[in-house]
Amino acid sequence: MTTRHLIPARKGAAHRMKKGETLRVINTHGSQVVDFWAFNAADLGECMSMEHSRAAIGRIIPKVGDVMVTNKRRPILTVVADTSPGIHDTLIASCDVYRYEGLGHKGYHDNCTDNLGRALEALGLKRVVHPCPFNLFMNIPVRDEVAISFEPPVTKPGDSISFRAEMDAVVAFSACPQDLLPINGRDCVIHDAHYEILPA
Amino acid sequence: MTTRHLIPARKGAAHRMKKGETLRVINTHGSQVVDFWAFNAADLGECMSMEHSRAAIGRIIPKVGDVMVTNKRRPILTVVADTSPGIHDTLIASCDVYRYEGLGHKGYHDNCTDNLGRALEALGLKRVVHPCPFNLFMNIPVRDEVAISFEPPVTKPGDSISFRAEMDAVVAFSACPQDLLPINGRDCVIHDAHYEILPA
Repeated sequence: MTTRHLIPARKGAAHRMKKGETLRVINTHGSQVVDFWAFNAADLGECMSMEHSRAAIGRIIPKVGDVMVTNKRRPILTVVADTSPGIHDTLIASCDVYRYEGLGHKGYHDNCTDNLGRALEALGLKRVVHPCPFNLFMNIPVRDEVAISFEPPVTKPGDSISFRAEMDAVVAFSACPQDLLPINGRDCVIHDAHYEILPA
Repeated sequence: MTTRHLIPARKGAAHRMKKGETLRVINTHGSQVVDFWAFNAADLGECMSMEHSRAAIGRIIPKVGDVMVTNKRRPILTVVADTSPGIHDTLIASCDVYRYEGLGHKGYHDNCTDNLGRALEALGLKRVVHPCPFNLFMNIPVRDEVAISFEPPVTKPGDSISFRAEMDAVVAFSACPQDLLPINGRDCVIHDAHYEILPA
């Protein structure tokens, strides 16, 4: 049976993947955004890049069959399945202490930027670059070709998106702790998410 | 009289700006894309960030009055004037050797990524991060909320966009050498562009 790994609510996780393995990221409770990153395991300066991937796939939201590329334009992950409505985001930075400060929060707030650093540290790795994340299940519609807004997810419990690793990679996740905007659901409650790694 | 500085066709340029000064970037010949970056002069790791700016301004194309922010979400440049039709791009990575390789080019091709590094070097500075550029005058329409395409600019000779510096900054430019796609005009000819710095 496939092991289901935890992405704890408000926190991060990271995992080493071998080329050919498949990653399934699961929106366990149905409205949780998962910030997601991938790096070349042999060179953490080579990362899955939203600005390079958009150019490669000709879309701002990847779909099944699309190949995400690195900042060296090499395939790193292919989207092989998506049981969600297919709404994800490649446009918005991970949240950080400055974001919560700007929203009026006092004191430290969990955030996806710090979560990535700590998740890599837990694998004994040091962050070299902080790329724009692939925000799984995040709903940022583009209206009239230019206007964007932060909307609740359109997912349901158990929706998942799956990726095949096209190189040995380190993947990292953050169960986004954004509870001041309804990006994780109108109730602004943050939930766990999970992931599985399936053999080649 | 304001000095007009050259951004040579296919090459880069960089300039130090003081807070309060205004930068005007001029599409001298009318169809030249200018890849554009800005950095905190005191910390080149703090850069104008497309993914943070999109979140701040609620748009994928900045307009007059919008404040571009850094990866620490601090104002770095305000768009104060735009005599072009207002079509610019924040979605697409700067071109690089891998891009031209992928398009079938043999041997070295000038590219915006290397141009940024060299432009900073010419000021005695070393690149710390390579952010997604703000692609001035570049026409990447988003259709049906998700599909993007690479289209010729809609600008005319002399169109310009102006920015006020909100901190001491290093700004850098590349007159994009992309001549294998019509992103710099249907004739794929690369031109000089220019910029001016106006006092506070």
